[in-house]
Amino acid sequence: MKARVTVMLKNGVLDPQGEAVRHALGSLGFAGVNGVRQGKVIELDLAETDAAKAEAEVRAMCDKLLANTVIESYRVELI
Amino acid sequence: MKARVTVMLKNGVLDPQGEAVRHALGSLGFAGVNGVRQGKVIELDLAETDAAKAEAEVRAMCDKLLANTVIESYRVELI
Repeated sequence: MKARVTVMLKNGVLDPQGEAVRHALGSLGFAGVNGVRQGKVIELDLAETDAAKAEAEVRAMCDKLLANTVIESYRVELI
Repeated sequence: MKARVTVMLKNGVLDPQGEAVRHALGSLGFAGVNGVRQGKVIELDLAETDAAKAEAEVRAMCDKLLANTVIESYRVELI
């Protein structure tokens, strides 16, 4: 079973990487970009075949390692 | 209109970041993780309201700045 985890900075947390992308897009002539937020996506290939167990395991991974839940939020999708 | 771009390393391209995550998960006791790939996700807030034009603009951004198309593939979703 495969899972995709998307980790983004929470709203209100300054995102310098996203700001850098926004500036760079402006410099390249892309007008009309009001905001950019950059996060990370992690695709996991799991041996677990039960969807509920897999999701619980991935959430535990997020809490322990993949996301810093003080400043980041995460979303888990099974694919 | 908002767009989400997901940029992943192409299959076959070595992903040291993903490997590091896989090892770390193993060290934390998460068995049964067969593979990990890490990529980035970029959420754009666009002034453009026409879906087709917005997608074309985002694809141009990806080709010029957001993805290195030699080693990375990207996916655009309008949200």
